[in-house]
Amino acid sequence: MEALKEKIVQEGKVLSDIVLKVDSFLNHQIDPQLMREVGEEFASRFKDTGVTKILSIESSGIAPAVMTGLILDVPVVFARKRKSVTLSDNLYTASVYSYTKNETNDIAVSIDYLHSDDTVLIIDDFLANGQALLGLLRIVEQAGASTAGAGIVIEKGFQPGGNLIREGGIRVESLATISSLKNGKVEFLEEVVAR
Amino acid sequence: MEALKEKIVQEGKVLSDIVLKVDSFLNHQIDPQLMREVGEEFASRFKDTGVTKILSIESSGIAPAVMTGLILDVPVVFARKRKSVTLSDNLYTASVYSYTKNETNDIAVSIDYLHSDDTVLIIDDFLANGQALLGLLRIVEQAGASTAGAGIVIEKGFQPGGNLIREGGIRVESLATISSLKNGKVEFLEEVVAR
Repeated sequence: MEALKEKIVQEGKVLSDIVLKVDSFLNHQIDPQLMREVGEEFASRFKDTGVTKILSIESSGIAPAVMTGLILDVPVVFARKRKSVTLSDNLYTASVYSYTKNETNDIAVSIDYLHSDDTVLIIDDFLANGQALLGLLRIVEQAGASTAGAGIVIEKGFQPGGNLIREGGIRVESLATISSLKNGKVEFLEEVVAR
Repeated sequence: MEALKEKIVQEGKVLSDIVLKVDSFLNHQIDPQLMREVGEEFASRFKDTGVTKILSIESSGIAPAVMTGLILDVPVVFARKRKSVTLSDNLYTASVYSYTKNETNDIAVSIDYLHSDDTVLIIDDFLANGQALLGLLRIVEQAGASTAGAGIVIEKGFQPGGNLIREGGIRVESLATISSLKNGKVEFLEEVVAR
């Protein structure tokens, strides 16, 4: 998605060979027009998959998820992060390790909002090691629901999450895939366009 | 806002005389169409106030804030909640006590995203005791910015936050104001319509 890549190049801050900060439009300040375009793009890519529900995770996943839900006209559920969740009959839960923060959080979704007849599109802001996405997939699985796939705003293609999850048979659509952050420079994976 | 009040009556769960749970469309599952209507209503009420930025707080404030920002065509910043924030030259911070959770969190906004020439519209999901809103107002003050006011999705009018903040001279617009949750029943404050 060209508008997104341009924004990343203009405003992203490369803090190291593996850390890209996009606080000016995605993770702290949010650009609502860009988020609408992101939502339109996800909706277009997944429009024929029978999505009945969007699943995301607080906090930075919410804006792109809500815009996608608006366009696909389906409800959005965001998983809550907690230091620890008391096991309960009323929650689907998964443990998610964050490499960035070096901490494990439990994520939880109420059983009221995901059902076995749902087809779930997962939306998140970043895909790097894939831990959050794996946690969300486990929650979909606990609900007995189907997965249409995952829509990711920015994938760090030089980290293993994307391959790991695609090899598991999950469709992952990333709107910008970064191949390298070396020397302070953002490089994108060229998209292979089907002819 | 009638559509919102109907949704509260249909789907809200009154858990006690002071607790209303609206997890089905605002706090866990989100109804994107309703959020767009909420955003349109806030945008309409504040359209002549020169808003340059929306300020909200993770996580449940983000959806209504982003929709308002989309329609007013201004950026949205959401304050981050932390157990404690290390004082830093790069952050505006405030401590916020939550009566619901009986805990104090620090909230923080990067100095990069609020400036003295900003006119800030604060958007949040709930107003009860007003602690979160007071914290956000302190952050606006630290930035030296102006406040257009606060747009609240649901105000618990029987708790003191709304009066406290209006008496401080801040314009507060609530789309549904609840006067009572007694006997498991939601009652709304009648809106006084100017003639």
